[in-house]
Amino acid sequence: MSRILTGIQSSGRPHLGNILGAIKPAIDLSKQPDNESFLFIADLHSLTTIKDGPTRREFTRAVAATWLAFGLDTAKNTFWRQSRVAEHTELAWHLSCFTPIPMLNNATSFKEKSDRATGPVNTGLFVYPVLQAADILLYDAEIIPVGKDQRQHIEMTRDIASAFNRQYDEDVFVLPEARIDDRLMTIPGIDGAKMSKSYNNYIDIFLPENELWKVIKKIKSDSTPLEEPKDPATDITFQLYSLLASDEKIAEMRSLYEGGNYGYGMAKKAFYELILEQFAEERERFNFYMTNNDALEAELQAGEAKARVVAGQTIARVREKLGFN
Amino acid sequence: MSRILTGIQSSGRPHLGNILGAIKPAIDLSKQPDNESFLFIADLHSLTTIKDGPTRREFTRAVAATWLAFGLDTAKNTFWRQSRVAEHTELAWHLSCFTPIPMLNNATSFKEKSDRATGPVNTGLFVYPVLQAADILLYDAEIIPVGKDQRQHIEMTRDIASAFNRQYDEDVFVLPEARIDDRLMTIPGIDGAKMSKSYNNYIDIFLPENELWKVIKKIKSDSTPLEEPKDPATDITFQLYSLLASDEKIAEMRSLYEGGNYGYGMAKKAFYELILEQFAEERERFNFYMTNNDALEAELQAGEAKARVVAGQTIARVREKLGFN
Repeated sequence: MSRILTGIQSSGRPHLGNILGAIKPAIDLSKQPDNESFLFIADLHSLTTIKDGPTRREFTRAVAATWLAFGLDTAKNTFWRQSRVAEHTELAWHLSCFTPIPMLNNATSFKEKSDRATGPVNTGLFVYPVLQAADILLYDAEIIPVGKDQRQHIEMTRDIASAFNRQYDEDVFVLPEARIDDRLMTIPGIDGAKMSKSYNNYIDIFLPENELWKVIKKIKSDSTPLEEPKDPATDITFQLYSLLASDEKIAEMRSLYEGGNYGYGMAKKAFYELILEQFAEERERFNFYMTNNDALEAELQAGEAKARVVAGQTIARVREKLGFN
Repeated sequence: MSRILTGIQSSGRPHLGNILGAIKPAIDLSKQPDNESFLFIADLHSLTTIKDGPTRREFTRAVAATWLAFGLDTAKNTFWRQSRVAEHTELAWHLSCFTPIPMLNNATSFKEKSDRATGPVNTGLFVYPVLQAADILLYDAEIIPVGKDQRQHIEMTRDIASAFNRQYDEDVFVLPEARIDDRLMTIPGIDGAKMSKSYNNYIDIFLPENELWKVIKKIKSDSTPLEEPKDPATDITFQLYSLLASDEKIAEMRSLYEGGNYGYGMAKKAFYELILEQFAEERERFNFYMTNNDALEAELQAGEAKARVVAGQTIARVREKLGFN
């Protein structure tokens, strides 16, 4: 049994890129019989960038509703909001006393964020990797699936945990391993660049039909006339369609492109309909959770109770070593 | 009713300098009918320097036993261990996201500690003022009695609280005022320098009699022969004696010094006996709490329950603003 931990950013409503690139692969992983997944919404981390309360609440709910809509098995796995398990910030404080300042100064993602910032950045951004270490170590997580940009943070978690274990000459913490998925798909946005909230080129599959269609219509295409054959290899709509469609449907669409007399508008319509068809259940479940807050809360609170049991055991070990018991 | 908050360092057993310079004045203040004192043992902060668990546990107990021995009224006031109230570290995280990094880089006490350090210092030391701000703001404290060296930290607390209040356009936090006591006594150690644990020149009034006597005997004195008159103004034993004795007794001692045929050893003996006499009750109560851990725990846990009520109200306001509710 491998214990896999994933922190989920809550900096917006998940879009198709998040869903295909991160959420579905994580849910697939969590379904494997040999795995037990710990998945938490990193709402405390979101405070480094989002200050508005209603926005955070809305994003957190949307993220939770998305994972539930896509069939996360909350009985087998553990799914919770970071802010509701007090042990996260407690352990972060303890770990900060085992984290040399230069380690944080050398964090690439911090340097990039500071460089991009127009004014002074906040301390939360600086100590971000310490809270992340606490998130991981609290649950004795063994495997952390991450993108390449997060590899350094997992290394820092290992360094902090090792410093602690060395200090007390005991394996208080499990050292986690990063699992870098190189095959990770990059999902194109409606302008062909990587789909991203910050590029405003994303497709929110949970939108009402008319709004969704408005977005799909905006997918960039070239000006090849209707009659002429089109190159599926360079067309964004075709690429997006291929991510969702069956091989058979993809082949059909390809011959339509190559045959001519098939316009981009028709392809977009087909893609739009494919989204509605393929995600019919997910859209329904998402809307259910977004309009039935009690049901959403019940799922999360049950997860938080489970998370607290595991976190409580770890923090008890830590407190004992530190003399806080 | 003024709400006064004092954080108590737990970096050792309190000595005579701590008792006369800090503990007794704070207890006197807490007895004034217009005041309500919040006094907590800053054991989380102690992790920045003390890593050994049994040492911290012992120091924390000794500090608690001292305050109780000196008659702190735990029914009127609130007395607790910082590490037992989870809201301290939670609020510290939230506040860190409202604390610009340059503010912490400019903290004088951090710069001094970094300059003195031989290796890289830990992040806990860097974010120390943020946890301190959380300690203060959690309890809506109005007045923070501090030494001059801590004035900057209270200013930082005000700045962080103001940034938060501004962000949400509401007085979520009370802005605390530093009360600098310029009259604060400096208590001389047995070598005449300021009594301090780090100078190893302190008098632990709770020592068993024979050990206490051994320390008192070591008080520095000059080599004036027994027969000759001695100058009370320059003698350390006389200064220490004067801190405890009544005016009448001080006058008596002064004439003995000036009369000759009165040796330093005799003065030391008188000082030793004065300690035993004056602190008889306190020594007994200290030993009671140090040997009856259940009684000590009962006092602290009752205080922690009271502290959690106040801290819980503040954190509820904060969570509401941040969208964590």
